[in-house]
Amino acid sequence: MVSLRNVHRSLEQRRDRVDEALEDLVQNRMTKSDAPAMNLARDILLAGGKRIRPVLGLLTYEAVGGEDVDSVMDLAIASELIHTATLIHDDIYDQSKTRRGVPTLHSTHGISHGIIAGDYLFVLAFSLGGRCEERIVERMGEAAANIAAGELLQLKHIGDLGTTPEDYYAIIDGKTAGPFASACSCAAMHADAAQEIVDALEKFGWEVGRAFQLVDDLLDLTGDPSMGKPRGTDVHEGKMTLPIIHALTMLHSVEREQLADVLQNFSDDRWGELTELLESAGSFEYAKQLIQNHIDRAQENLEVLPDSDAKALIIEIAKRSRGRRT
Amino acid sequence: MVSLRNVHRSLEQRRDRVDEALEDLVQNRMTKSDAPAMNLARDILLAGGKRIRPVLGLLTYEAVGGEDVDSVMDLAIASELIHTATLIHDDIYDQSKTRRGVPTLHSTHGISHGIIAGDYLFVLAFSLGGRCEERIVERMGEAAANIAAGELLQLKHIGDLGTTPEDYYAIIDGKTAGPFASACSCAAMHADAAQEIVDALEKFGWEVGRAFQLVDDLLDLTGDPSMGKPRGTDVHEGKMTLPIIHALTMLHSVEREQLADVLQNFSDDRWGELTELLESAGSFEYAKQLIQNHIDRAQENLEVLPDSDAKALIIEIAKRSRGRRT
Repeated sequence: MVSLRNVHRSLEQRRDRVDEALEDLVQNRMTKSDAPAMNLARDILLAGGKRIRPVLGLLTYEAVGGEDVDSVMDLAIASELIHTATLIHDDIYDQSKTRRGVPTLHSTHGISHGIIAGDYLFVLAFSLGGRCEERIVERMGEAAANIAAGELLQLKHIGDLGTTPEDYYAIIDGKTAGPFASACSCAAMHADAAQEIVDALEKFGWEVGRAFQLVDDLLDLTGDPSMGKPRGTDVHEGKMTLPIIHALTMLHSVEREQLADVLQNFSDDRWGELTELLESAGSFEYAKQLIQNHIDRAQENLEVLPDSDAKALIIEIAKRSRGRRT
Repeated sequence: MVSLRNVHRSLEQRRDRVDEALEDLVQNRMTKSDAPAMNLARDILLAGGKRIRPVLGLLTYEAVGGEDVDSVMDLAIASELIHTATLIHDDIYDQSKTRRGVPTLHSTHGISHGIIAGDYLFVLAFSLGGRCEERIVERMGEAAANIAAGELLQLKHIGDLGTTPEDYYAIIDGKTAGPFASACSCAAMHADAAQEIVDALEKFGWEVGRAFQLVDDLLDLTGDPSMGKPRGTDVHEGKMTLPIIHALTMLHSVEREQLADVLQNFSDDRWGELTELLESAGSFEYAKQLIQNHIDRAQENLEVLPDSDAKALIIEIAKRSRGRRT
């Protein structure tokens, strides 16, 4: 069993392997006819990032007894390519200036280049993942198609103070939890795990993905310079995240009106006001409790797996999703 | 052997089959969790279009002896989905107002929705095509990746009067000829055709694809209301098509300067001037000759195939690419 003090190093190693595989992919494509497209996409692709989806894929494969980790790397990388493609495209319509600490692609090269670079990474992802067996490609395609549905739902609810928690979960399930679930269950399928194991890892992915997105949304309100984007991006864009949806439900009369006003006429000098209202409604605490619940349920789904280093590392990732710097 | 008077009806039948398969796909996705995305993409997807890539795929499959046409439909449809995805995205950065005779998606729903709808169709294409064997997915992915490279090259040469014929062919090979080649060779692979047959159909696809794009570019200069977009779109956008590249090479002194001025300061009242210059340079004739050469070479590559109705129809498509309405 991996000792706790080695956990950090072991996770770093997995991330390094993903980074190396991405670098190899970039090098390889730079010798092909699609080099101009990779030349454009490479900076954002190699600009870092947590690589959480591919790392979960690698660890899941190991944890269910997969013996040829190299064979699952294409699938793992595919999940990161899809993720990066959506980030590039999201940044266009969110008009974001920075991502992963570097200027967004469209802000340096124009919208056309941003669209094409994202398209290219989608295509590359399916070129890699498409080599897998049919049920894996199907699950991967389903997850990617649901990202589009989740994003449309999110756009529909921009600035909508009547957004429900169910709407919120439908959005984050499409955008984030589904791709996490797919990364885990596809890796398990690739290792030929039994169906009940595949199902358990699929559920694990949903829960840890929800926790992950909830933490992201919480950090947008509380601030975290390591995210590579400024605090309050969501609020400025009118994105309805769970703490805000919760506060809109819990607050009444004057406070409810004040919150609506803050959201509809937001500017950076109203941070104090917003934070106070969210605290008064208990919305930070509520979100933190939900995050803990998702992490607990994620862990429960891992109980079907035999103990292993990989399993311990997966649990650690789930736990850490809560503890990211605020 | 199919009689000539039945050719038209036979081609219509194939297109109808493609249209039906697309309608079935739309209906099917409208019952799934990605329905919001399909709801957005369906109008442009079902707005007609020549369906030339999928029809070529079906006919190729038949012509090489494939016996289960239904089995190749997913692959055929995938080529149309990728094509439509690129149209939606192209229209965003080309700022086009209409496509296939209907308003472009981004002009009615905004850029965000246009980007997401295109992404969704890319993903759906690979979900369908990704069920095929590895070499097919690889070829499909390669073609789609090269679309991105071709588009970037095109953007790079916008307004560039020094664009060479080689640049032009690199652009149209990526954007159009490669996807045609992939549609044909993938269908042949799916029918388990011998490698020399697959190679011949790949070459056929390149040649017919080049003819097709050259005709499109010629029609942009001469006008064709059936294309669903106004004449001169390319000229207004500064796209360097072959007749223009040719004229810039052939004309000298005053005429060359006049052409450069027309291109750099184009407006609709300069159509007469532009047409005269292109005629004086023999550029229309030159483009028509090249189109004929590509069609001839396309046909030569079909000689390896035994005679069949499907082969006769493929030849007809190649010939018709020249004769589209001017």
